Amino acid sequence: MGTTQLEAVQEPKYWHLKSVLSDALDSEFAVGEILPNERDLAARFGVARATLRQALDQLELEGRLQRRRGVGTTVAPPRIGVPVGSGSHAWPDEQELWEPVGVTREAAPASIARMLGTDRSAHVHTVRRVRARHGQTVAAQLMYVPAASVPGLGDAPAAPEAVLAELGRLDLAGQDRTVELGSARAEDARELDRLPGAPVLVVTTRYTVEDRTVAVSVDTYRADTCRLTFSDDGSVIAS
Amino acid sequence: MGTTQLEAVQEPKYWHLKSVLSDALDSEFAVGEILPNERDLAARFGVARATLRQALDQLELEGRLQRRRGVGTTVAPPRIGVPVGSGSHAWPDEQELWEPVGVTREAAPASIARMLGTDRSAHVHTVRRVRARHGQTVAAQLMYVPAASVPGLGDAPAAPEAVLAELGRLDLAGQDRTVELGSARAEDARELDRLPGAPVLVVTTRYTVEDRTVAVSVDTYRADTCRLTFSDDGSVIAS
Repeated sequence: MGTTQLEAVQEPKYWHLKSVLSDALDSEFAVGEILPNERDLAARFGVARATLRQALDQLELEGRLQRRRGVGTTVAPPRIGVPVGSGSHAWPDEQELWEPVGVTREAAPASIARMLGTDRSAHVHTVRRVRARHGQTVAAQLMYVPAASVPGLGDAPAAPEAVLAELGRLDLAGQDRTVELGSARAEDARELDRLPGAPVLVVTTRYTVEDRTVAVSVDTYRADTCRLTFSDDGSVIAS
Repeated sequence: MGTTQLEAVQEPKYWHLKSVLSDALDSEFAVGEILPNERDLAARFGVARATLRQALDQLELEGRLQRRRGVGTTVAPPRIGVPVGSGSHAWPDEQELWEPVGVTREAAPASIARMLGTDRSAHVHTVRRVRARHGQTVAAQLMYVPAASVPGLGDAPAAPEAVLAELGRLDLAGQDRTVELGSARAEDARELDRLPGAPVLVVTTRYTVEDRTVAVSVDTYRADTCRLTFSDDGSVIAS
């Protein structure tokens, strides 16, 4: 009894169920196939629905399952490899990947203002873009550009293309990136066809010219369908 | 009535609660402070415990909260920036970051064997290492090294240091990395002081010599406490 209980602590019930389900996905289901509903699945594997849901949560985290409103739970295709670039990327390469969908001119969030070294209340051009791959929107971007980085535009509102064109005139010296786990904000979730709060990979890039941060982008990638790829030479890696 | 229901669909209740909780964390709690229990919190904000739990899940995903067995839910410190390197890194820089904890010699998982181009049943040296930062274990690594990459060792089992030393003799040509969301396997979870299935960032690196893959490492980073940093020149970025 003692051993059994110890093992139960070390490996939760849903964890074992996850392995069993994972094998079933490999052997019995095709990509895109809809799984039986939770009640039927719980009955088949002889577990409580709460346990089943935990196991489904794990498989969703690992990109094996997709849960979509109005569709149900389906077997996910392999994740798409999305090149996030290397240090050798410059403006032009990056720009072509993204499609502008709007721009605002407002105060940046506190964390962004800190990175830009701007006054908290200073307005920045915030260009909103999306990135598609294989016909699917995989990422939503907010590119924060302080007025000082695009002096040619003056203080007036400008079209996203104008902001980006002016930014592109800068001779980019470097870019630093961080990747972390986040949850989709409502606006990003809509563009990514996810529920608000869904796990996402957040890539924050600081663009520098002569040690000065001239722009910061916050790119929100779907964590369920994407794997971010980095390479030495900027070449695309097959996933 | 219609409008209210529509808004409820667009922005779930837990999403609004998350914002309210997030503000409360900023204004009322210090880093490391233990939150009241779920029953008290649910009562304070007038929500069902299921709703509260969803909001806490979101805040945990975003790295604002930590939930630990036997401790409860605490306010998380800012995430640690962990340099994952750039293309300019070579073996020696990388090696110093990791501490070997063991080695096995067994068949690699199917996905790894595919990347290595080895026979599915071929044994590979699998070195297990951990990486600490600021005194905390932040990542667990499995480095898969086929016998062909370390001919000096022969087929016999070898100490982890011997495998790595032999591997370090290769003149590394390149390395490709992918970053994706995963869930912690039981063994990794133990080393990272997490529950099995906790969200993790999985960094898979393919090391190449003359277009040949000589080793593959799978690094599992804590997603709650880490942000992975990448830079042009391999320098460490302040988080």
